[in-house]
Amino acid sequence: MHAEIIAVGSELLTSSRIDTNSLFVTERLNELGIDVRAKAVVGDDSNDLAALFRQALDRADLVILTGGLGPTDDDVTRDVVASVLGLPMTENPEVVDRLRRRFESRKLKMPEINRRQAMVPEGAIVLDNPNGTAPGLLIVAGTRRVLLLPGPPRELKPMFERVLSEHLAPHAGSRRFYRRVLRITGRSESHVEQAAQPSYQVWRERRLPIDTTILAAFGQIELHLRVSADSRADADAILDAAARDLHLAIGPDIYSDDGRLLEQVVGDLLVAHKLSIALAESCTGGLLASRLTDVPGSSRYVERGIVAYSNRAKIELLGVDEHLIREHGAVSEPVARAMAEGIRQRAGADIGVAITGIAGPDGGSDAKPVGTVMIATAGVGEPAVRTFRFFGDREQVKFQASQAALDMVRRRLVDYHG
Amino acid sequence: MHAEIIAVGSELLTSSRIDTNSLFVTERLNELGIDVRAKAVVGDDSNDLAALFRQALDRADLVILTGGLGPTDDDVTRDVVASVLGLPMTENPEVVDRLRRRFESRKLKMPEINRRQAMVPEGAIVLDNPNGTAPGLLIVAGTRRVLLLPGPPRELKPMFERVLSEHLAPHAGSRRFYRRVLRITGRSESHVEQAAQPSYQVWRERRLPIDTTILAAFGQIELHLRVSADSRADADAILDAAARDLHLAIGPDIYSDDGRLLEQVVGDLLVAHKLSIALAESCTGGLLASRLTDVPGSSRYVERGIVAYSNRAKIELLGVDEHLIREHGAVSEPVARAMAEGIRQRAGADIGVAITGIAGPDGGSDAKPVGTVMIATAGVGEPAVRTFRFFGDREQVKFQASQAALDMVRRRLVDYHG
Repeated sequence: MHAEIIAVGSELLTSSRIDTNSLFVTERLNELGIDVRAKAVVGDDSNDLAALFRQALDRADLVILTGGLGPTDDDVTRDVVASVLGLPMTENPEVVDRLRRRFESRKLKMPEINRRQAMVPEGAIVLDNPNGTAPGLLIVAGTRRVLLLPGPPRELKPMFERVLSEHLAPHAGSRRFYRRVLRITGRSESHVEQAAQPSYQVWRERRLPIDTTILAAFGQIELHLRVSADSRADADAILDAAARDLHLAIGPDIYSDDGRLLEQVVGDLLVAHKLSIALAESCTGGLLASRLTDVPGSSRYVERGIVAYSNRAKIELLGVDEHLIREHGAVSEPVARAMAEGIRQRAGADIGVAITGIAGPDGGSDAKPVGTVMIATAGVGEPAVRTFRFFGDREQVKFQASQAALDMVRRRLVDYHG
Repeated sequence: MHAEIIAVGSELLTSSRIDTNSLFVTERLNELGIDVRAKAVVGDDSNDLAALFRQALDRADLVILTGGLGPTDDDVTRDVVASVLGLPMTENPEVVDRLRRRFESRKLKMPEINRRQAMVPEGAIVLDNPNGTAPGLLIVAGTRRVLLLPGPPRELKPMFERVLSEHLAPHAGSRRFYRRVLRITGRSESHVEQAAQPSYQVWRERRLPIDTTILAAFGQIELHLRVSADSRADADAILDAAARDLHLAIGPDIYSDDGRLLEQVVGDLLVAHKLSIALAESCTGGLLASRLTDVPGSSRYVERGIVAYSNRAKIELLGVDEHLIREHGAVSEPVARAMAEGIRQRAGADIGVAITGIAGPDGGSDAKPVGTVMIATAGVGEPAVRTFRFFGDREQVKFQASQAALDMVRRRLVDYHG
């Protein structure tokens, strides 16, 4: 089965917006063994959309259109699809009712324009939208299926999950794509590639060959492995073996081979060892704490965090010796050490982590250019401190610093046998 | 002038890769007043590419194809374009020579397959590629221009900059696009739309009509205005008037009309009033501090932040009365108030902000379901506290809570004449 995806919305043709829905949709389709053959983005223009939609119908068994289901004149998807397929539209009273109740539950009167969202092409299945006003639509036209989904990801995702399991999975064959993502810190893209290359060769000659993609981002590298197989067991055997090859070639720089993010890996290690953590951040400004607390259940191990931007806060809240700051500067290894030890002791936590540095764009010097960051850990083994030099803008420096801090904690916990 | 962009490459149809070249290309084209009408991603398949390319040629004055210019059989872009346009291809000896020298400079022999990269459609202008082996191609076919660029961003970008200035800008005319973004908090998309609708009508009938796009995300709405004009002054006059219309219709829910984010607006207000701020966060886990410190220069006004996840941290670091927590619970208005006042006093800051709530997925109750968040401010006027109920997952609740807190501070500072 082949699918095509058309994202509708003039905003997606600007340089500030990107169609991320198609990534999610592609991933789920691939899991069902459905290949995405092409994807397109088109503005809120009926003629352009009609031309693209006609062409997609020629090629694909499943055409998925996202966006353009809102209540305004800009929202053309419903009308264009109905007109290309030659289906008359009528107002669906149940949908009107549901919309009205949705507004009433918020003590609002439904604006009249929202009635447009209740227009349904003949024979279409209406897909309920618990997170928004725009219902989705599924149309079966001969051997083709056409699926209309709302643009906002939080509306699209749960709706698409339901359509997949209720309407698409039953028609997909037994061949599925199975994926494995390995995440790596502390190496450059070319070093990962060089280490992995010999494995690629071997995998390509297997009965079920593995597709690989390498993705480099600030602070981490991802290796995506994909295999097409008849069962999860077949795929797992192959992907497990491939992951083992990579663990041998790359070693502990691989922090996850099951899709977990670094903050989750660290959280799981803290839970496993029954340890608590406390954070003292200067240049990352709370990003490290925020990432750790993105993980559900993190209140079990995150005791507290201090954003000590000012020297006064470093002295008062972390007990850093004023003379240490005067002698070495706030961005220095001795101050990072003192911050980590200070937060650990004051919080009564098992591990203290401290970050101090120059995120930029100002504040750099020849000796300590923008991107210079010191990270220290205290507790669970010997205290440690490292100096990093990151590249990129302020937000990129902040992210890389938080990533390096998490990785220092991870390596410490992996080696810990409490 | 209208452009379409086609990205070629099967790897761009997986869930892990995204076509970022088109964002860069779009931004540069828009600056020249060239509109991007549609964009597409297609695999390394000659038939699919030919169909898409034909359709793009029908609609656009400029078709830009990226990727598929490598030396292997997978690289079909050159052949497809030449065949659709009916242009014979010949090997260009200069390109062969350049390729050979490139390999020799690295002490390598040019592989024979790389000769494919020297095949040039009749009449095409060859675009030198200093960062890779694939030359670009520019073909003028009647009133249409077709541009072939290599896929790797570091090869595409410098090549595209040169083509723009040497070949496209001279034909672009004086008309350019000018944009204005208005950002709004505290209203739903349909309420913004309803308030703005009468203005849309008026703008559409002007000599230089304004294009509008509304973008709704958690915690904010964006209105993008775009006008095509002969000069910056013409555009500014129109966009300034439009912004005034919207300020009248929507009022102080508009927090920015110059592209600034909410954290920047709050930062600028703090600087203007020479005020400092300190933050006490529970459920947002440092996100509010991290967002405020994303702004360059924020060390001037962010005195400190405390992530007080545990009750012990709330008591020790913020001076919250233990009995208050016992009586009302940690997620309550009295505790939020006490946290805001506590951080303000201890930090010696002008403004204290506190957030306490239930980010989920666990921890909710009937009385305080997941998404319940109390936000308090202290200092600069009467203390204030509000209870919110946000929807979405943990990260979305965190973001909305940080957004609401920033907005409470903003409204307080806008009214402040201290």
